[in-house]
Amino acid sequence: MEPLNSTIAAQLGHRTIRRFTCEPVAAEHFRQLMDVARATATSRGLQHASIIRVTDSRLRSELAEIATQAYMADAPELLIFIVDTHRSQRIIEEKGADSPHANSMNAFFEGVTDAVLMAQNIVVAAESLGLGTNYFGNILNDPARVIKLLNLPELTFPVLGLSFGHPDQEPQLKPRLEMSLRLMENGYSEPESWIEALVEYDEIMQTYYDLRDVNNRVDSFTKQTTDRLAAEPAARTRMMRVAQAQGFDFALTD
Amino acid sequence: MEPLNSTIAAQLGHRTIRRFTCEPVAAEHFRQLMDVARATATSRGLQHASIIRVTDSRLRSELAEIATQAYMADAPELLIFIVDTHRSQRIIEEKGADSPHANSMNAFFEGVTDAVLMAQNIVVAAESLGLGTNYFGNILNDPARVIKLLNLPELTFPVLGLSFGHPDQEPQLKPRLEMSLRLMENGYSEPESWIEALVEYDEIMQTYYDLRDVNNRVDSFTKQTTDRLAAEPAARTRMMRVAQAQGFDFALTD
Repeated sequence: MEPLNSTIAAQLGHRTIRRFTCEPVAAEHFRQLMDVARATATSRGLQHASIIRVTDSRLRSELAEIATQAYMADAPELLIFIVDTHRSQRIIEEKGADSPHANSMNAFFEGVTDAVLMAQNIVVAAESLGLGTNYFGNILNDPARVIKLLNLPELTFPVLGLSFGHPDQEPQLKPRLEMSLRLMENGYSEPESWIEALVEYDEIMQTYYDLRDVNNRVDSFTKQTTDRLAAEPAARTRMMRVAQAQGFDFALTD
Repeated sequence: MEPLNSTIAAQLGHRTIRRFTCEPVAAEHFRQLMDVARATATSRGLQHASIIRVTDSRLRSELAEIATQAYMADAPELLIFIVDTHRSQRIIEEKGADSPHANSMNAFFEGVTDAVLMAQNIVVAAESLGLGTNYFGNILNDPARVIKLLNLPELTFPVLGLSFGHPDQEPQLKPRLEMSLRLMENGYSEPESWIEALVEYDEIMQTYYDLRDVNNRVDSFTKQTTDRLAAEPAARTRMMRVAQAQGFDFALTD
């Protein structure tokens, strides 16, 4: 087996960092991360995603409240990635072009994809600089409130948050499903029984040492799955209605 | 200015590679890429995305036909990333748990996010190994046909394709929007006129040398925007209906 290169070695060492030192991210490093965002692949070249850097402490507190994760407010850097086909709609209008699709599900989906590609590219770059990172999917607990807080216009939508800074903790690697259960060849395949296939992983998860709650044993993966899927904030369930209210047309009826 | 580290230097050199040598991807490298996929951040730890590796030449031809990109069939490796909350539904059923949300918009959205995070993590790792990569969002030209071809069961959905291999071309870097137009602080902001803000970028795009069509000048960005948004295959527009048919509930009505 050949040794891992430094990029891949760092990727395999990925873990979520929730506590940072007060050392700010160097301006030069922040600029490099934005250059990486800019160089990220984008659907049809249309660059339908933008980034809101949140520096205002009141905004940060409110976003942390939505995400129910207090430590979100304190991170040295906090970015919110958004779908942004608003720009394209403005281009269409300014040009008087006959182009009806800046509000389509397809444009929305491409925008989500572009936003997430950019976020992960930044994460790898940040970790290569020794920074720690933390995603916040939980901003979608209340997308309408995020939209209001960040003044997001028609044809934009929040996708995910990302904080980063210099790590002030060293959590254990989180155990993951075997890739043999997630990598299939030429078509979907699945075990006869997932409960049986997951016996070992369930046990491994229960011995994982979670810094967030050091006094309690972590639940098995199958218990996490059923519990977490049962607990969805109502505002989160209605997220597509909020996206509709932002002007996106999901074409669910003729 | 400090020199770029090797990870970031490679990320800034990203370009789409559409032609590969016939040298296969080393098994050891493929394994490393799957380890990277496994180590990728995932929403709520639920790992709601899977990968289909397509090696069958008939399947590859049909997928390339859907994506209208013939070179998709010939790449050394072709992966299709899918939302996969089917596994969680099976876990719920086997456990007899009262957990109604494996089909929610939220679970779907988390699955899309997980799939794209994984794809981009693989892309960075592949490029660090000297491989070239190519995303195929165009598999969504006809999601129902992709679902049929890959036997995707209820509560799964195709997100994007990715091919990779040893590059047999060296395309120019594709010019991108200035990040100052995509990075905002504390709220959405936009120029008075996008047409004016994009004059320079429109010109830069027109001097870009696109290997796909060396005989024609590339369109300006604003023209690409209006043209590409006007041209959407009908099956693509209806993608959310296909996702509904796969069992996802977008909760658009009470």
